[in-house]
Amino acid sequence: MEPRRSWREILMLPGPTDIPEESYRAMGSLLINHRGREFREFHTQLIEKLKKIIGTKQDVFLLTCSATGGIEAAVSNVIEDGDRVLAFVAGQFGERFAAAARYYSENVVVVEIPWNRAPTVEDVRKGLSENRDVDVVLLVHNETSTGALASNIEEIAGECRRAGALLVLDAVTSLGGVPFSFDEMGIDLLVAGTQKCLAGPPGLAIVAVSKRAWEKIESLKKRPTYFDFTLHREFMSRGETPYTPAVTLFYGLDASLDRIFETGLNEWVDRHRRGAQAFYSSLGELGLEIYPLPEFRSPTLIAVKMPEGIRDVDVANIMAEKYGVHVGVGVARMKGRMIRIGSMGMVTAERIKASLRALCGALNEQGMRLDYTSVEGIVEESLSK
Amino acid sequence: MEPRRSWREILMLPGPTDIPEESYRAMGSLLINHRGREFREFHTQLIEKLKKIIGTKQDVFLLTCSATGGIEAAVSNVIEDGDRVLAFVAGQFGERFAAAARYYSENVVVVEIPWNRAPTVEDVRKGLSENRDVDVVLLVHNETSTGALASNIEEIAGECRRAGALLVLDAVTSLGGVPFSFDEMGIDLLVAGTQKCLAGPPGLAIVAVSKRAWEKIESLKKRPTYFDFTLHREFMSRGETPYTPAVTLFYGLDASLDRIFETGLNEWVDRHRRGAQAFYSSLGELGLEIYPLPEFRSPTLIAVKMPEGIRDVDVANIMAEKYGVHVGVGVARMKGRMIRIGSMGMVTAERIKASLRALCGALNEQGMRLDYTSVEGIVEESLSK
Repeated sequence: MEPRRSWREILMLPGPTDIPEESYRAMGSLLINHRGREFREFHTQLIEKLKKIIGTKQDVFLLTCSATGGIEAAVSNVIEDGDRVLAFVAGQFGERFAAAARYYSENVVVVEIPWNRAPTVEDVRKGLSENRDVDVVLLVHNETSTGALASNIEEIAGECRRAGALLVLDAVTSLGGVPFSFDEMGIDLLVAGTQKCLAGPPGLAIVAVSKRAWEKIESLKKRPTYFDFTLHREFMSRGETPYTPAVTLFYGLDASLDRIFETGLNEWVDRHRRGAQAFYSSLGELGLEIYPLPEFRSPTLIAVKMPEGIRDVDVANIMAEKYGVHVGVGVARMKGRMIRIGSMGMVTAERIKASLRALCGALNEQGMRLDYTSVEGIVEESLSK
Repeated sequence: MEPRRSWREILMLPGPTDIPEESYRAMGSLLINHRGREFREFHTQLIEKLKKIIGTKQDVFLLTCSATGGIEAAVSNVIEDGDRVLAFVAGQFGERFAAAARYYSENVVVVEIPWNRAPTVEDVRKGLSENRDVDVVLLVHNETSTGALASNIEEIAGECRRAGALLVLDAVTSLGGVPFSFDEMGIDLLVAGTQKCLAGPPGLAIVAVSKRAWEKIESLKKRPTYFDFTLHREFMSRGETPYTPAVTLFYGLDASLDRIFETGLNEWVDRHRRGAQAFYSSLGELGLEIYPLPEFRSPTLIAVKMPEGIRDVDVANIMAEKYGVHVGVGVARMKGRMIRIGSMGMVTAERIKASLRALCGALNEQGMRLDYTSVEGIVEESLSK
């Protein structure tokens, strides 16, 4: 039997996050024929909802795979042998993005960015001037391993366009958590997750494809069968998917998107900003160190450096076992030294307070002397704004 | 909101099929941290259950993707540029298998088999003698587009082994519906679906990997990031998956497997045989034509040729709308001319009778004069055996 946890525990992971009760209920609804009229209508409406959130009138597909599968789909549809790829890497997901691309072309150039910040317009301009004839630029919008957000995507996209390169954006933990307009920003290919800021179930990936990206996709000599976007476009024209979709996950995501629109899309997104502000102000007040430089701090992933001598795993275990608050730990070069709190999806004062209370309690068990009550007011105030 | 259908409607599709009530309930259970102890224990037990059904002590992975994604994973892990692949094609899924492989090597030789039967030991022996130095053989166990089952997999695997080739078996609609022993049969790589004879939710693929397959996998210069089996093995050694799994689908599948073991694995599998026997005897009695030759008829997919002048889509629509029985129609070269009934998962006399009643009723509306009551007893008798 599946493990049962209590509703009193909360998932503040870098994803998956908690999802609305109605999303759980929807996932228990009866399966239907994915080649029938009901599914086609439902699926078409679901994609329209996603288009509103992404800010696009162009093609959007919902793929049955994890977000990393969405990354695989993206790189395999626009990169072929010999293509010159420029990958900006400022964390583990940047590394993974470059590694995924390397399967499809050996010509992947990595631009290393310090992990305590995100790539900037200047980085991209410099990278594109030092590396000529780049076909594809890979960039992580919100680096989930470090909590750093890249800004000015519109300008970055402009640099790519002027250099004749496509911009493929990993928006896995940003979509739904920052204001988004795929068409106006000029992104060519976007990959997002459902189990992050959209508060949907894990197991699906979202992709959006621009007109420029289609030209490249159609020019490829071959594409992997499972991820072939031209097939997805063909089937989507009648509301279907090329292969059997994860129907119950589509149901769950649909219910989550309805929750977003009931809340109001702008309000949903802005709560991420206010929630992160509450975290950062509180952490500052408590004297804890936030990993990324101030101007790069993510609205969806809060990365807290552990004080010397305290291991992240010990802190996370106490937070989970004593307080029922599940968070992530450091990965790659930050392994052992960082607590990563996902403030994604349903951002509320209660969830933030529970997280800070648990963090303070766990750190105090490790020898610190933090007063959680000193920041409770900060959270209330930030969220009410 | 997701489309709602009635419990009185039944899915007799070539997949997905109906799943137990407890599987729906399980999918509505709360998400947990996929990097935590509870998930690791649950996942490890789930894989052990799958190993029992597959009949293996070797590696089994549950992938977050459709069965076609499992096919992509299989071919991408054992085929690299220049590899010689021999694909036996007797239907649409055989064609798809060969097409998937062609992305990874241009050296794919197709052996065409008449669509009203499945590949035999003789076909494989002949194919391997006419094509030397084959690295990988692709074979569909149960061709879902035609309702033909390949027998003597053990001997086929022996032929492949003697020729120095790996056998990759598409068991998407056979696992759980025919007796299986991966290790004794000597299969090298197996791909199965969850939403077919296991009566689980759609959105997952099952793969099993032999020792011989590992040698080939490890020898490849590169593997796609999302599907890399060496990463899956590494993470599975501690009960995890490399990337975020579709947690709620894992829950649902687990509940379905529990139902199988409560029924008894042998009884569960044998019901597929008896259920298909009930269909074939009844269809014969009614004078309807079964597509595959007698010795190749599948225990899980019943392919009925439409009488001259009757379109499959019209029949399927009446079956769905008037009788609430959802079935598949003809595809590829059988488009327009075939009703495909999935008799998978929960095989009961009630479901078979409802399907035959609907089929007779729909065909009668198209001008035939079939007497459903003449076969009701056949179904009861076949299932009670």
